[in-house]
Amino acid sequence: MPRQFTKISLHEVDERVRLLAEKVYASALKEEETKNALSMFTVPEDCPIGLHQAKEWELHMNQSVIFAPDWAMSVISPLLTPSTPIGPLPIDIPEFQRVTISGDYCAGITVEDYEQAAKALLTALFIREKYSRLAYHRFPRTTLPLCFISMATESCPVPSEGADPYSMEDLPQNLNYSLRMKEGIIYVYDNEDALKRDQPRSLPYPDLETFAIDMSHVLAMIADGPTKTYCHRRLNFLMSKFQLHEMLNEMAELKELKCVPHRDFYNVRKVDTHIHAAACMNQKHLLKFIQDTYKTEADRVVLEKNGKKLTLKQVFDNLKMDPYDLTVDSLDVHAGRQTFHRFDKFNSKYNPVGASELREIYLKSDNYINGEYFARLIKEVAHELEESKYQHAEPRLSIYGRATEEWENLSKWFIKQKLHSPNMRWIIQVPRIYDIFRSKKIVPNFAKMLENIFLPLFQATVNPQKHKEMHVFLKHVTGFDSVDDESKHSDHMFSYKSPKPEEWTTEQNPPYTYYLFHMYANIMVLNNLRKECGLNTFQFRPHCGEAGSITHLVSAFLTADNISHGLNLKKSPVLQYLYYLTQVPIAMSPLSNNSLFLEYSKNPLREFLQKGLCVSLSTDDPLQFHYTKEALMEEYAIAAQLWKLSTCDVCEIARNSVLQSGLSHQEKKHFLGENYLQDGQEGNDIRRTNVAQIRMAYRHETLCNELSFLVDAVKSEALAEQAL
Amino acid sequence: MPRQFTKISLHEVDERVRLLAEKVYASALKEEETKNALSMFTVPEDCPIGLHQAKEWELHMNQSVIFAPDWAMSVISPLLTPSTPIGPLPIDIPEFQRVTISGDYCAGITVEDYEQAAKALLTALFIREKYSRLAYHRFPRTTLPLCFISMATESCPVPSEGADPYSMEDLPQNLNYSLRMKEGIIYVYDNEDALKRDQPRSLPYPDLETFAIDMSHVLAMIADGPTKTYCHRRLNFLMSKFQLHEMLNEMAELKELKCVPHRDFYNVRKVDTHIHAAACMNQKHLLKFIQDTYKTEADRVVLEKNGKKLTLKQVFDNLKMDPYDLTVDSLDVHAGRQTFHRFDKFNSKYNPVGASELREIYLKSDNYINGEYFARLIKEVAHELEESKYQHAEPRLSIYGRATEEWENLSKWFIKQKLHSPNMRWIIQVPRIYDIFRSKKIVPNFAKMLENIFLPLFQATVNPQKHKEMHVFLKHVTGFDSVDDESKHSDHMFSYKSPKPEEWTTEQNPPYTYYLFHMYANIMVLNNLRKECGLNTFQFRPHCGEAGSITHLVSAFLTADNISHGLNLKKSPVLQYLYYLTQVPIAMSPLSNNSLFLEYSKNPLREFLQKGLCVSLSTDDPLQFHYTKEALMEEYAIAAQLWKLSTCDVCEIARNSVLQSGLSHQEKKHFLGENYLQDGQEGNDIRRTNVAQIRMAYRHETLCNELSFLVDAVKSEALAEQAL
Repeated sequence: MPRQFTKISLHEVDERVRLLAEKVYASALKEEETKNALSMFTVPEDCPIGLHQAKEWELHMNQSVIFAPDWAMSVISPLLTPSTPIGPLPIDIPEFQRVTISGDYCAGITVEDYEQAAKALLTALFIREKYSRLAYHRFPRTTLPLCFISMATESCPVPSEGADPYSMEDLPQNLNYSLRMKEGIIYVYDNEDALKRDQPRSLPYPDLETFAIDMSHVLAMIADGPTKTYCHRRLNFLMSKFQLHEMLNEMAELKELKCVPHRDFYNVRKVDTHIHAAACMNQKHLLKFIQDTYKTEADRVVLEKNGKKLTLKQVFDNLKMDPYDLTVDSLDVHAGRQTFHRFDKFNSKYNPVGASELREIYLKSDNYINGEYFARLIKEVAHELEESKYQHAEPRLSIYGRATEEWENLSKWFIKQKLHSPNMRWIIQVPRIYDIFRSKKIVPNFAKMLENIFLPLFQATVNPQKHKEMHVFLKHVTGFDSVDDESKHSDHMFSYKSPKPEEWTTEQNPPYTYYLFHMYANIMVLNNLRKECGLNTFQFRPHCGEAGSITHLVSAFLTADNISHGLNLKKSPVLQYLYYLTQVPIAMSPLSNNSLFLEYSKNPLREFLQKGLCVSLSTDDPLQFHYTKEALMEEYAIAAQLWKLSTCDVCEIARNSVLQSGLSHQEKKHFLGENYLQDGQEGNDIRRTNVAQIRMAYRHETLCNELSFLVDAVKSEALAEQAL
Repeated sequence: MPRQFTKISLHEVDERVRLLAEKVYASALKEEETKNALSMFTVPEDCPIGLHQAKEWELHMNQSVIFAPDWAMSVISPLLTPSTPIGPLPIDIPEFQRVTISGDYCAGITVEDYEQAAKALLTALFIREKYSRLAYHRFPRTTLPLCFISMATESCPVPSEGADPYSMEDLPQNLNYSLRMKEGIIYVYDNEDALKRDQPRSLPYPDLETFAIDMSHVLAMIADGPTKTYCHRRLNFLMSKFQLHEMLNEMAELKELKCVPHRDFYNVRKVDTHIHAAACMNQKHLLKFIQDTYKTEADRVVLEKNGKKLTLKQVFDNLKMDPYDLTVDSLDVHAGRQTFHRFDKFNSKYNPVGASELREIYLKSDNYINGEYFARLIKEVAHELEESKYQHAEPRLSIYGRATEEWENLSKWFIKQKLHSPNMRWIIQVPRIYDIFRSKKIVPNFAKMLENIFLPLFQATVNPQKHKEMHVFLKHVTGFDSVDDESKHSDHMFSYKSPKPEEWTTEQNPPYTYYLFHMYANIMVLNNLRKECGLNTFQFRPHCGEAGSITHLVSAFLTADNISHGLNLKKSPVLQYLYYLTQVPIAMSPLSNNSLFLEYSKNPLREFLQKGLCVSLSTDDPLQFHYTKEALMEEYAIAAQLWKLSTCDVCEIARNSVLQSGLSHQEKKHFLGENYLQDGQEGNDIRRTNVAQIRMAYRHETLCNELSFLVDAVKSEALAEQAL
């Protein structure tokens, strides 16, 4: 079966969808401009949602248009079998007290609204499933049992123990493929001839129009009254149900954990799922490192500035500073009260002592000393992780898209400095700063930036012989991140009418969704190509929902394997419920948020966890936020203390972090249990995860229960139609 | 000048004071019984205080009775000189923006109320000063400039570096004094003859009646309407003033800190001012220690039970447990949701795996293995502190008062196991569990328990030759603590009518205040005796205000050098203001409170700090509460993160912790600066403390300002009287 991205053209879809999409995109723009106004997607915290809105909807709704019946029914029909999603209970779950609700489950909303909401939600699930499947992203088998992706594929076949992680032997042959960027996406051709004939290889190439239409479905849905009401009620129910579960089964869960030999919170695996390499050490660590280098290498030339070579001593002399006297206060990299809601101030915290020279010398991979200090710092952090044995991290390294050599340089640095660590997996972050490059005339249009980022990846994939270092480095890379201040606003409104990247020549920065689509599109094509070649694929894991418009979370719902932050899910019950149903992993960093966007006590992590969203804990920037030597443990300790999390809670978070991570299939089997790909209690090995089977069963049964409501709604409508 | 405890007899004082005292004591009792009722001492959080109460007071108040004019005026008169308490500004404070209020400073209350409140508060200051002076406790010189205690005395002349900390050479001679307990207090006689004649040496022997009268002054005052109003207003003012100061000077303070070479939060000295030795290691540490001993010493006899000797292996076999499989979950020493407001459940957390055998083997100093494991555990913690260099701790060891040998045994254990560490100072905690001993018929009355606790101390002081180990051990002890669940209620109401300890023969436990008075009385006499002998003295540092009646904080206001917890100061504006004026140090443990009595977000630490109370941070029980290896840093990190404390804030807390601690004069000079005994900026060496001089000046000027209001009130009244 050829893997294809099925195109939908705007003239094929209903006029109403188009109009609604336009209205929704317009309101998204408006929302960004008048931040205090209640957006049409959000629900005040003390809902019930205004009946007015729901009624207004009913008035101009005569039949379902969002839920394209034919297409969806073909997929859903296998679900319309008598068997319920809740399978037979395996024998190894201890007895526990279950919460069952009898009677009308859609109490409070009309049957029509319920069916309307259910169809809308199912449509969204199918949309995400499509984008996930094509990109080799993960999708829970419980949610769409017939459409799950083969998860047994290696996301990163890490060098086995003993093997040389930097080996350049046995490289695959040159495929002699041709490559060309078209509308911001790299197309692959069998040869020059095919290129001339414009006959690309059969790979799923996404297109902006289809994406915009798919996205407008979800956008329309998150503003839809009945759907909002339904999701809001389900989420409240999920929260209360968990609280009941906890009261009833807390001791039983604890008893399970007490019986697990040799496994506790300290020796379950935890992955720091979101951390920036340039801030992965804490402030004291960086300070000590600077002092140590000065003590031993003061006369080393470390910087070339205006054509003049400077030794470390000269650099510090110029700064009028003796490193011995340097303190974390004068280093001034820690976030403080000054950074709250000031991302701009925060970014400058990356400059030690406010001096960009020191950032250049110590925190860059491409500098006069070939990034040696930066590499040594990272390796010291890696060493601590290895010592701790049970902690892993997924640091982000930057590719900017300024020039094509970036990849080559980064790869060479990685290999030369021997940065591989069994406790680290690497993620590439791409800052959304086209506007800066354009205004400095570094790139002529957005397409060139995309080409700088992605063309080298395709080249290294089709011709590893010519790009040896990149080929090796890419084996260690497990994903891509899109980073920058989400609260920065773009004047351009993303839509199917948005100019193509080649036409994007203004100095204006494209909006978030535009970035995400083009990163997704290229990663997706690349993954399909690499899969053909037997190479590892990449996850797309953007920063999303830290601030800014709620539409960011819609874009990521389609394009991302998992996201970092997700705070704004607080604001949209529909999106929150969708992230729950599809179990999109969310790497949350409450200490980072506390310094930048949201006070700790208002952080939704605990609420998300209770409702059953797939959340993990991560540090973001230990350099700026943490105090102790063990940043990830500090993050866990504070969450556990303040939210009074149980051992089972924190172990569940740790398990989520491993699931979410780019660790290999082998490693996940080792850390979570042989059957970790199975959902629910069957996929859990309590001896490895220290998560109670009762908890796993509760989560699984609850998700199945929620899904069964959606299926039942469609079922009953289908039966009604058959009767007609 | 002979040091005497001036006795006051009840028939000497005004009838009204007596009646009021009785009323107050009665209401205290009532308050404990009906916890939800608003006590007469407290102020609802959203004051202003009901005018009704204030008016009622005015009605039956014609003249000052609480403020015994003659006695107090004699002490105050030196203050009535024209010079203001605010001295000339030294030259080394950077410019900063000061908050000055002009106009009527007692706006909102009448002049009469103001004078009434001022006199009451001054009375309280004099009372605390008396008790502090006699016990060689500390009292800030700013607050009563003429009555400060010579602080240059060594509280603990710790063995200098290189010297043998356990040396038994050059012991002082036997003084041949005689000792006898009378009314629960040890009296010292020059010889047997003097004892027969009942002529004790001239030392200040406190008596219950005087104490009860002094205490009733303060009790009456905290229920006094005008005083409550005045204090409430002043505290609100202090808080707002600090917030203003912070807004205006935050950057200037930070600038100061940035200019301090080589000193930052990480290398200022911090003392963990409140930690229990039996819980000073974290759960993971204890777990690992148990596993290690099992690995290497499984066949060692470690326990004698019912006459049968058991090896470690046999102990674990009996418990049906393999230590290798033990986890922090099965160890089950960590506080969880189950312990909140359940101190009883919390106490059982000291039993690893719920097995008292393991507590006996690993966490006791007096057991079959001579407390070797317990000592090794503590030494491992000490080693970590020494490695950290800048962290100190003051662990509590228990003396119960069951038997006279306890002291001898503890001393021998200390010396044999070589427990001295330069980073530790020792405090003796006495649990308030007379009722248990009495019901088991271990002691016949309360006096016997007191004798078991204190007589050995006096004996070792007057005849070190005969009590060599104790003499050596006492050099390392710096204070006493009184511990137990404060929320447990005693049916007996403390008053001047309370039976004497010899007469306390019932199984009922004496109330908190009764315990505190008798501990204070004996420590005070002992300190005077030891001072005469040139030996180190002890601080009284009880747990106080963690829960239970507000009267606990009144008892400690008189008797304690400093306290642990102090949460209930939240509830009484008068006491809170008094603790501020007298700068009584408070060792707070918000993480402990969070697990036991008060959610983190409701903890008053930050508010206390802003108002200027002398607060420090401590861990209480790392075994039960903390997650990381660095418990004290975890405590600081969480406070700093959640309350967004500035570097200056946390360094001020660290400075407070050193001030409050039992570290020696030499050490404090080294850690805080040569002139640390001076109040305000002159006493601060920013190069050592990293506390901004601006902050110090602000604190000092603010305290002087508050005090000047009190003095002005008395002054104006004195002038008015002269004019008559």
